[in-house]
Amino acid sequence: MNFHTRKWVKPEDLNPNGTLFGGSLLRWIDEEAAIYAIVQLGNPRVVTKYISEINFVSSAKQGDIIEMGITATDFGHTSLTMRCEVRNKITRKSILTIDKMVFVNVDEDGNPAPHGKTHIKYIEEQFEKEDL
Amino acid sequence: MNFHTRKWVKPEDLNPNGTLFGGSLLRWIDEEAAIYAIVQLGNPRVVTKYISEINFVSSAKQGDIIEMGITATDFGHTSLTMRCEVRNKITRKSILTIDKMVFVNVDEDGNPAPHGKTHIKYIEEQFEKEDL
Amino acid sequence: MNFHTRKWVKPEDLNPNGTLFGGSLLRWIDEEAAIYAIVQLGNPRVVTKYISEINFVSSAKQGDIIEMGITATDFGHTSLTMRCEVRNKITRKSILTIDKMVFVNVDEDGNPAPHGKTHIKYIEEQFEKEDL
Amino acid sequence: MNFHTRKWVKPEDLNPNGTLFGGSLLRWIDEEAAIYAIVQLGNPRVVTKYISEINFVSSAKQGDIIEMGITATDFGHTSLTMRCEVRNKITRKSILTIDKMVFVNVDEDGNPAPHGKTHIKYIEEQFEKEDL
Amino acid sequence: MNFHTRKWVKPEDLNPNGTLFGGSLLRWIDEEAAIYAIVQLGNPRVVTKYISEINFVSSAKQGDIIEMGITATDFGHTSLTMRCEVRNKITRKSILTIDKMVFVNVDEDGNPAPHGKTHIKYIEEQFEKEDL
Amino acid sequence: MNFHTRKWVKPEDLNPNGTLFGGSLLRWIDEEAAIYAIVQLGNPRVVTKYISEINFVSSAKQGDIIEMGITATDFGHTSLTMRCEVRNKITRKSILTIDKMVFVNVDEDGNPAPHGKTHIKYIEEQFEKEDL
Repeated sequence: MNFHTRKWVKPEDLNPNGTLFGGSLLRWIDEEAAIYAIVQLGNPRVVTKYISEINFVSSAKQGDIIEMGITATDFGHTSLTMRCEVRNKITRKSILTIDKMVFVNVDEDGNPAPHGKTHIKYIEEQFEKEDL
Repeated sequence: MNFHTRKWVKPEDLNPNGTLFGGSLLRWIDEEAAIYAIVQLGNPRVVTKYISEINFVSSAKQGDIIEMGITATDFGHTSLTMRCEVRNKITRKSILTIDKMVFVNVDEDGNPAPHGKTHIKYIEEQFEKEDL
Repeated sequence: MNFHTRKWVKPEDLNPNGTLFGGSLLRWIDEEAAIYAIVQLGNPRVVTKYISEINFVSSAKQGDIIEMGITATDFGHTSLTMRCEVRNKITRKSILTIDKMVFVNVDEDGNPAPHGKTHIKYIEEQFEKEDL
Repeated sequence: MNFHTRKWVKPEDLNPNGTLFGGSLLRWIDEEAAIYAIVQLGNPRVVTKYISEINFVSSAKQGDIIEMGITATDFGHTSLTMRCEVRNKITRKSILTIDKMVFVNVDEDGNPAPHGKTHIKYIEEQFEKEDL
Repeated sequence: MNFHTRKWVKPEDLNPNGTLFGGSLLRWIDEEAAIYAIVQLGNPRVVTKYISEINFVSSAKQGDIIEMGITATDFGHTSLTMRCEVRNKITRKSILTIDKMVFVNVDEDGNPAPHGKTHIKYIEEQFEKEDL
Repeated sequence: MNFHTRKWVKPEDLNPNGTLFGGSLLRWIDEEAAIYAIVQLGNPRVVTKYISEINFVSSAKQGDIIEMGITATDFGHTSLTMRCEVRNKITRKSILTIDKMVFVNVDEDGNPAPHGKTHIKYIEEQFEKEDL
C-alpha cells in the first residue's frame, strides 16, 4: 500500500475535546479514495457506494502529521473496491483502518457503467529513493 | 427514531460532479452522533470508536434539504451504540443508513470510563404537534 | 416551538476570545430559517428579507451543544414571518432570540410570488416519546 | 462612513439558489463590527450584545465585489453603538443596512467594563487620494 | 498605499503552533489583490500570473487585527503589477511584503486581453477624516 | 522530486470565474511544505520565512486532480530550503513552480534554532511498484 496524501492537524480539524474530529478524518478519506478511484478507472465520475466497518484504532492531536494509504483490492464490472489505512506519519502508529470502500463508475446520467479495468495501474517512472 | 438536525445542501458541500460530497455527509453524521451520545450519557467526553458498514442508498443535490436521525440501540458499560439514518426531508427518500455507530465514554485522560446509563432518556415536555 | 438542528461548538466556531463567534451563530440561524421556510412554503426559492432586533442573551463556549428553534408567526401573501430562539441544549439557557425573521417566496426570476399558504403544516406521523 | 473590508463573492459563499448566502454576509459583518469596536475601544475583549433590525435591500451574485462600512454612532459607558452598511463596490448599490450594532467592552472574566472612550479616533496620517 | 481589508485572527486561521497559518495569509492576499485588479481594470476576469518573492517579516497571533494594503505599480498591455504589504493594524508592525503581484486581464475564453488602463483610478468622493 | 499530497478540485476551491482559486492553491502548498520540513527536520516547530517567485504556469478546473511535489534543496544552520512543483496528476501538466521555499526551525519561544540536519532522509521500506 502506498501512502500519498498527508495532513497537518490544525485547530480547525479538532473536536471540542481537542483531538482530531472523526468527521474531518472521514471527509479526508472519502476524498482520497475518490481520487484513487478516478485515477485507476480513468473516469472522473465515480460515487461512494459502500464503506465497510471503520475501526478507530487511535486518535491524533493538534500538530500531528497523518498520512493516508489506499490500494485497490477488487475490480468489479462497474465498481472498484479499495482498502484504506490512516496512520501517524512519524510514529507509523495506525489511526484507522477500513477493509472495503466501494466506489461505482457512473456515466453522465449517474447510472453504473462498466469501467473495463481489471488490475492496478502503476507509475511508470520509478524513483530509486523516496524522501521521507 | 427522531430526526433532528437538518442541512441545506449548498455549493460548498458538493463534489466536483455536482452532487453531495460523501465526505461532507460523513462529517455531519459524526457530529450528530457525538451530540446524541453526549446528551444521552451526560458527559461531553465521548469518542468515535467504531462505525459499521455504511450504505449510500441514494444521493442528494444542491438545494436539497436532508435530515439526520439517530437512536440508541445498546448501552454498554463504557460504550453507546446508535443506529443512524439520513434522508431527504421533503421526499423521505433514504440517503444513507448505518446500523451501528459506537462511541465510548472517556474520562479526562481519555481512558474508557463507565457511564452508568442503561436506557434512552426522553424529553419531558412533549409537544402535541410538531411543525413539519 | 420545536427545536431541531443542533450544533456542537468546535474550535472552528470560536472568536479569538474563545467563546462562540456571533457571526457563526448568525450563519447557522439563517440556514435553519431558510430550511423552515422552504419546508413550510413548499418552494426552494426563498430569500431573507428582514431580521428584527437580535438579543444576545448569553454566550456559548467550546464543547457546548446548542439547539435552534423556529416557528412561523405570520403567513403573508408572498412572505413568511418566523420567530427564533437558540438555547443551550443541556441547560436550556437562552442564548439568542429573534422576534421576526421575514423570508420572501420568489419565482425563478427572483421576483416575489404568492405562496398560497396560510398556516403551519405539521408532521403527520407523531412519535409518542422523543429522545432527549 | 468609511468602507474598508472587501469580499469577492465566491462559490463557497452562495446559497443553493446561486446568490450570496445571507448567513455568510452576517458572518462577515459581525467580524467587521468586532474589528471596528476593538480598534476604537483599544481592547480586544468585545462581545456582540444587540443588533437592530436588518434590511436586505438587494442581493449579490457570484463574482460581485462588496464592501462593508461601519461607523460609531454612540459611545456608552461600557458599550459602543455602530451603524453598518454593505454595498456593491462597483455599482454602489446598497445590499444591507443595520442601524445599530451594540458591542460591549468586557474584562477578563467577561463582565462589562467601562472603556473610557467618548468619540471616534481618526487615522492621523491622511492620504491625499485613495485608490478606487 | 491604502489599507482596506482587515482580518481578525481566529482559531480557524492558526497553524498547529498557535500562530497565524502562512497559507491562510496567502489566501487572503490573493483575494485582496484580485479585488484590487478587478476594480482598477473594470473587468471581473483576472488571473494570478506571477508573485515575486514573499518575505514573512513577523508573525501574528490569535486575536490580532491585521490589514492588507495593495497599490498598483505598473500597468502593462494586458497585465497589472501591484505591491502588497500586510501589517498589524494596531502596532503598524509589518507582517509580510510582496514587491510584485502580477495579474492578467483575460477574455471570456481565458486568453490575455488588453485592458486599456494606464493609471490608478481614485475614489472621487473623499472623506475629510477617516475612522481609525 | 516525489509527489505526495493530492487534491480533488471541488466547488469550494474555485474563484468566481470557475477556475481553481490561486489563494486556495497557495494555502495547500504552504501546508505541504510545512509537513515536509517537519518530517525532515524532526521538529514540529517550523515557520515559513521566505517564498521565492511563484509562476502560475497553467490553471486547473473543477474535477481536476492535482498533486504537489516538494524536495529539499539546501540545509542551512537553522533553515531548510525546498523546491516545489504542482501539476495535474492525469496530464502531468505543470500548474505552478516555486524555486525556493525557506522554512526556519524554531525553539519553544519561536526563536531560530539549529536543526542539525544536513541531508534528505529517505523512506527505508521501498515498494517495488507504486500505484498510479
